[in-house]
Amino acid sequence: MTDPNAAPQARPFALPVRVYWEDTDAGGIVYHAAYLAFMERARSEWLRAAGIDQRRLREKEQVQFAVVDMQIEWKRPARFDDLLTVTASIAGKHRASFSFAQRVLRGAELLVDATVRVAALDSATLKPRRLPEELLNACP
Amino acid sequence: MTDPNAAPQARPFALPVRVYWEDTDAGGIVYHAAYLAFMERARSEWLRAAGIDQRRLREKEQVQFAVVDMQIEWKRPARFDDLLTVTASIAGKHRASFSFAQRVLRGAELLVDATVRVAALDSATLKPRRLPEELLNACP
Amino acid sequence: MTDPNAAPQARPFALPVRVYWEDTDAGGIVYHAAYLAFMERARSEWLRAAGIDQRRLREKEQVQFAVVDMQIEWKRPARFDDLLTVTASIAGKHRASFSFAQRVLRGAELLVDATVRVAALDSATLKPRRLPEELLNACP
Amino acid sequence: MTDPNAAPQARPFALPVRVYWEDTDAGGIVYHAAYLAFMERARSEWLRAAGIDQRRLREKEQVQFAVVDMQIEWKRPARFDDLLTVTASIAGKHRASFSFAQRVLRGAELLVDATVRVAALDSATLKPRRLPEELLNACP
Repeated sequence: MTDPNAAPQARPFALPVRVYWEDTDAGGIVYHAAYLAFMERARSEWLRAAGIDQRRLREKEQVQFAVVDMQIEWKRPARFDDLLTVTASIAGKHRASFSFAQRVLRGAELLVDATVRVAALDSATLKPRRLPEELLNACP
Repeated sequence: MTDPNAAPQARPFALPVRVYWEDTDAGGIVYHAAYLAFMERARSEWLRAAGIDQRRLREKEQVQFAVVDMQIEWKRPARFDDLLTVTASIAGKHRASFSFAQRVLRGAELLVDATVRVAALDSATLKPRRLPEELLNACP
Repeated sequence: MTDPNAAPQARPFALPVRVYWEDTDAGGIVYHAAYLAFMERARSEWLRAAGIDQRRLREKEQVQFAVVDMQIEWKRPARFDDLLTVTASIAGKHRASFSFAQRVLRGAELLVDATVRVAALDSATLKPRRLPEELLNACP
Repeated sequence: MTDPNAAPQARPFALPVRVYWEDTDAGGIVYHAAYLAFMERARSEWLRAAGIDQRRLREKEQVQFAVVDMQIEWKRPARFDDLLTVTASIAGKHRASFSFAQRVLRGAELLVDATVRVAALDSATLKPRRLPEELLNACP
């Protein structure tokens, strides 16, 4: 999913995430859907780091984001109290959507690997719309 | 919490709830906060059974509900795949809020016992407001 | 992802799922990760309908299941109080894993479309293991 | 719920918690049960700060904790992207349980106020047991 000829990329954005009881299930490991929330936290922090205020975007420009598709592989389980790293880096940019490559790691160990496409929606109609200017500028 | 002099009440409203993996934690039991969602499902179905459409209330009359306080006791744990019964019955009615007595049972066994107070809010300002007429009529 | 030469399949297993407040987010729609829990509920009910008791499998045969990969497309949003249908049908069977085709619908309208691969794990070591016999027999 | 004659207490343990989409509901605010998870995160971090390793306690001494009762008041709503402070301080200590006073604040504004009682359980039987020594020593 990564172009091997791509120019060496800057280190991806990374958010530390602690695993709490709420994230686990009776299988003794982190519930598979919890990683989607972890990855969404990392995208929210990526946006903040890029100077994009989601609350302002919605209130002032009537833009909200929605995940439209995802390919995700759960390779190894995380457990209660693990300290994880969740990364996010831009993998593609289109007219009305952009894609992230995201990973969840425990130290150097890769636990989850995903590609996530996020669309911009008009928050009144929930119809797709052009990416906001400040996002286009923030994406390399 | 129940008035012993109250007239014998009709059997309380009851919703069956199956426990899935999402509801459990690595302690092997249902996560304590999951019962609050179960009880909220039962209140939503109580409202529906009383002919109250929460979506219409919000869109047409700008009313939404919010839980304002709760006393809750977790007595015994539920586990994955248990089939639970979640009850809701009106325990009190005030100008801007109403209270439910709620229980979570597995067969005859009482797992969780709670009293929950819910307020009516103006959905634009999130300020308390008078209970809507149709709710006052629905409460005994 | 579906073999076009496959014999016409029986109608897929379907579970009705009501959307409650817990499933929604401040975007006014169902949170994207909530659909993964909905789909897991449908798989759990598919197993039950096939006579497979996950709790017994784990306690007696030390087998538990884990989602290992997923391709998922969110096409249209669901909202609070919607009544959804979540389907599950076997899309493939391997030595240590099996795949489901899953959909979330509102009436005839397709909201979410996914392919989900689930592996059998030894519940002590969390290592992959051969699918249990009763599951092999249950899969067409 | 606080004794006004109590000796001035040390500043309570405090954990910053960011509100993400997963925590909100279609009412536009944080879902009421999400605060219970926030408070459980703060108790987990309180335990860690007190040198108590929950994972080791469970594996080595067969002790796990369970919330047994709670009184909670939701006073004001938090919203997406708010940065909250979640406090935890010991409010009582019994033979087999201990109580926390917990608050959720946004700056100086009090959003949620709770008293939470947590019991020690034998993790095999889930029966109450004496508090572990290291916890007794950690509680003032």
